[in-house]
Amino acid sequence: MSLTPEQQAQIEAQRAERRETRRVVAEGLEDRLFEAVPVLDHGFVRVVDYMGDDAAIVQAARVSYGQGTKHARDDAGLIRYLMRHWHSTPFEMCEIKFHVKLPVFVARQWIRHRTANVNEYSARYSILDREFYIPAPEDLSAQSATNRQGRGELLEGADAARVFEILKADSHLCYDHYEEMLAEGEDRPGLARELARMNLPMNIYTQWYWKTDLHNLMHFLRLRADAHAQYEIRVYAEAICKLMAAWVPATWKAFEDYRLNAAQVSGPAMAVLRRMLAGEAVTQETSGMPKGEWREFEAMLKG
Amino acid sequence: MSLTPEQQAQIEAQRAERRETRRVVAEGLEDRLFEAVPVLDHGFVRVVDYMGDDAAIVQAARVSYGQGTKHARDDAGLIRYLMRHWHSTPFEMCEIKFHVKLPVFVARQWIRHRTANVNEYSARYSILDREFYIPAPEDLSAQSATNRQGRGELLEGADAARVFEILKADSHLCYDHYEEMLAEGEDRPGLARELARMNLPMNIYTQWYWKTDLHNLMHFLRLRADAHAQYEIRVYAEAICKLMAAWVPATWKAFEDYRLNAAQVSGPAMAVLRRMLAGEAVTQETSGMPKGEWREFEAMLKG
Amino acid sequence: MSLTPEQQAQIEAQRAERRETRRVVAEGLEDRLFEAVPVLDHGFVRVVDYMGDDAAIVQAARVSYGQGTKHARDDAGLIRYLMRHWHSTPFEMCEIKFHVKLPVFVARQWIRHRTANVNEYSARYSILDREFYIPAPEDLSAQSATNRQGRGELLEGADAARVFEILKADSHLCYDHYEEMLAEGEDRPGLARELARMNLPMNIYTQWYWKTDLHNLMHFLRLRADAHAQYEIRVYAEAICKLMAAWVPATWKAFEDYRLNAAQVSGPAMAVLRRMLAGEAVTQETSGMPKGEWREFEAMLKG
Amino acid sequence: MSLTPEQQAQIEAQRAERRETRRVVAEGLEDRLFEAVPVLDHGFVRVVDYMGDDAAIVQAARVSYGQGTKHARDDAGLIRYLMRHWHSTPFEMCEIKFHVKLPVFVARQWIRHRTANVNEYSARYSILDREFYIPAPEDLSAQSATNRQGRGELLEGADAARVFEILKADSHLCYDHYEEMLAEGEDRPGLARELARMNLPMNIYTQWYWKTDLHNLMHFLRLRADAHAQYEIRVYAEAICKLMAAWVPATWKAFEDYRLNAAQVSGPAMAVLRRMLAGEAVTQETSGMPKGEWREFEAMLKG
Repeated sequence: MSLTPEQQAQIEAQRAERRETRRVVAEGLEDRLFEAVPVLDHGFVRVVDYMGDDAAIVQAARVSYGQGTKHARDDAGLIRYLMRHWHSTPFEMCEIKFHVKLPVFVARQWIRHRTANVNEYSARYSILDREFYIPAPEDLSAQSATNRQGRGELLEGADAARVFEILKADSHLCYDHYEEMLAEGEDRPGLARELARMNLPMNIYTQWYWKTDLHNLMHFLRLRADAHAQYEIRVYAEAICKLMAAWVPATWKAFEDYRLNAAQVSGPAMAVLRRMLAGEAVTQETSGMPKGEWREFEAMLKG
Repeated sequence: MSLTPEQQAQIEAQRAERRETRRVVAEGLEDRLFEAVPVLDHGFVRVVDYMGDDAAIVQAARVSYGQGTKHARDDAGLIRYLMRHWHSTPFEMCEIKFHVKLPVFVARQWIRHRTANVNEYSARYSILDREFYIPAPEDLSAQSATNRQGRGELLEGADAARVFEILKADSHLCYDHYEEMLAEGEDRPGLARELARMNLPMNIYTQWYWKTDLHNLMHFLRLRADAHAQYEIRVYAEAICKLMAAWVPATWKAFEDYRLNAAQVSGPAMAVLRRMLAGEAVTQETSGMPKGEWREFEAMLKG
Repeated sequence: MSLTPEQQAQIEAQRAERRETRRVVAEGLEDRLFEAVPVLDHGFVRVVDYMGDDAAIVQAARVSYGQGTKHARDDAGLIRYLMRHWHSTPFEMCEIKFHVKLPVFVARQWIRHRTANVNEYSARYSILDREFYIPAPEDLSAQSATNRQGRGELLEGADAARVFEILKADSHLCYDHYEEMLAEGEDRPGLARELARMNLPMNIYTQWYWKTDLHNLMHFLRLRADAHAQYEIRVYAEAICKLMAAWVPATWKAFEDYRLNAAQVSGPAMAVLRRMLAGEAVTQETSGMPKGEWREFEAMLKG
Repeated sequence: MSLTPEQQAQIEAQRAERRETRRVVAEGLEDRLFEAVPVLDHGFVRVVDYMGDDAAIVQAARVSYGQGTKHARDDAGLIRYLMRHWHSTPFEMCEIKFHVKLPVFVARQWIRHRTANVNEYSARYSILDREFYIPAPEDLSAQSATNRQGRGELLEGADAARVFEILKADSHLCYDHYEEMLAEGEDRPGLARELARMNLPMNIYTQWYWKTDLHNLMHFLRLRADAHAQYEIRVYAEAICKLMAAWVPATWKAFEDYRLNAAQVSGPAMAVLRRMLAGEAVTQETSGMPKGEWREFEAMLKG
């Protein structure tokens, strides 16, 4: 992670202050507030504000006048019920705001989740820093031979070395030229920032404030903390999972059980499952399911 | 306003508590937190949570690491700039959650603003209270003769009395029957709540938690605090305007200047205005504007 | 269904016209276009426009220049894949617009689905018709004794008769008074429409144009065509299911298999399932699952 | 524009086909359907589908059974009224779908408009083409000395030549390396596509299907066809303006008058305007307006 000493000091200053409030406070998250959690080689994610906690979900579900119930156990039971039966509106009553530093190609995937508020650092207005994502050796994977959208084995030896060489050299060359184009001479202006930025490669880091409600956060996490998500966005999702667990522990547990670790069993697969439970030895041929669906079904049963 | 002593006590209990937080605190709004502001005869609006303040808007606009600027005056200038140039994303970085009690026909207008989160009291699950909106005598207007969507003069005397009589009698009759249909006898169940509710008239009160970001709140207020909005929703919007002014005073001022009190001057009207400023006495005939647009234009110039 | 002869003639006139277009045409839906499908006693749903078909989903998924693939079978396979793996954006590329006539209490549930466009008949501006939903005898259910949100047995005999009597009498009484309040006398104006409407009960019919994309339509249908939805909205969802099947048959089949008839199995339930498949006789006690979750799990296995 | 002969043939084939439909047809847009309108050096925008026309807006505003009014002139008047009074829902009843080819840095601005549906060409799954945006000499502007977000004078001579040299050389170098990293050898796999793409600069072209309703399209156009928008996105917005004018001519005229060419006059500015119309010679000092706001006000009066 690349925080300048000045940035680090600003964060420390924010963490040091305490104020009084009448609002609900999520103790577990207060501890983590403003703290930059490192992700990838120069990125981070940090919570800069939040609204609500587990009890606020229950309170909204009941449209109550006071503080919701007294019994954390009852609250957890109701939260599990709401999650199981797809009641989304109570979860929308909690909100969280992050400051994220991330490579541009990750930002482009991330922003496809539209039900969130975003304020990105402007490269029309400001100059981007010389910081690029260069994968760690253990993340330098080959194209998967079987899955057009996935990764296969690791690159190694000379192959890996060549890729590192390219990524590093091109990043710095493009950035050198970015600076050169921006530079003002004695009697000439620099190129417009909004134009110069187009020479930068997509592994450059950008940053934004990203704010979303808990329901849409869980939707994001379900897709992006999933094993099929690209590694470089998954690590952000995983860091956010931990922050969510600190914020709303009962909701986190229900989310794990009913979304992250849950399986979606199709109608035809459910029929096969019932035959299996009745003792029948079903094969792909006798299942009536296409091969691809059968393969995914078998994988799901193994877990 | 009709808060039961128990509800009032719950609100007081919430107001009495203080907790420590590292988050931004909007002092002006803390004072008003949880307090039920009376609206109409039995309704209210109260803030139950919020995120951010004026400085948080600036901080997001700058994607900054620390607490934003130190100078409230610079912040206000930037906020005015953002408002003037329709930069909406920084305003989306503040969020507010209300608990509102309101007549059903008002709720039906309100919910047309879709970019908000809502959790309404469920009449499938629970039983509604016997509370109906009956207009005050000074709000009992006749249909406007000129504007099909508006109100004209006040009803008076026997006309007004007859309307009151109808509204009160029908409300109570329908509610009596609602209770009768719900009632269980010794050997028979009551009618399903989700069915019985259909006998209730639209002046009955409902309640909900309503959460939105500041940008969308301003959009709501611009349309609903407007003179053309129906009186019964406008009074809610006006109550919220005061709460917004307490929460984000710099944004409120910019919003007043650039939205609430601003005029939208069409291209053709702007051309006429320029002729007027050059000294020409323009009339509807010489303006080239249709009569209706000219009438609205003249009204705008008078203010 | 209550279409006036004039309305019926307008619909027939629309159905009779044919125009040429370069756009994609969904033959199955063209047949049903404009036709009012009766729902409840006076309601209907009819398709007034649509954009796209099954092939358009594939075309968008591939960002293709031409008409997508030639082979309907390959298209169906890709559509199943997209559905199974929660790729929502290709389904958003189809759009449909309905004209719906429905009781107000149903409209209030319906509008909670916010990602749609709605234009409702205005009771500020116009006068509502004297049409009320009165349940058929076979839909007049008692409150469920076990599920606070559901229906139990049918009401019968005198109990049912009394409910019909109330619903009919109150509807007409309120409407008589609505008309009386609106009426202008020789020397006096009527009450403003926006006020008079508040005397109407929530079983009165309203109507709207409702437009949504296919992804959000499926979300609506999954929740509202479900057995737990209130009967009065479920019948609308079921009518729309048939129209969707006529419009995008391959997507409909995938939706049935992977959403409508699919089961969501939680992480803990999946672990139990694996023990069962391995031959173990698991009970609620040995499952580690709470009673409520176990009951739902057992119900799911039975189907 | 860089369409391959095969792509061009696919487009021609689509344009050649005609089908019968019962739906509303917008003749002006049918003419332009599928046609790729060139934008920048290799980009384009083309309409691939649409729903509705001017009459459909009126029909939705009236929630009508038939085809809306017979009189185009009345329709235009109502459309102007709706636009003037910010009635957005009727405009949401029209929908349009574009296929756009555009540089990545333009795509990143574009996607900030969230109320639209997007399906982008996947660089995880597929290989991007060797096509980069290189500005025309007349678009190669220096950074503005007065506006941190804008462009100033043109770069010329050796300065311009150096920029071209950099942009071209770096684009091709990065792309050569992209291909090298992807390449499979005899006994080794290529780098994963989802990783290799990060070496590409942001002037590379991507493409997507983008679908939005007419209300949100106008919001996009108001911000992006504006003189303050970056040139490279403005040219796309301008091309879309022409397509919109062909599609819904009455709405386009109202949009021009009330949005594109309209002025937003703040409350304080309106007060000054009234003093001017009354004959007073107001200066910045006597206006009470801050310098920046006064400057923008004067510019608005000049037009």
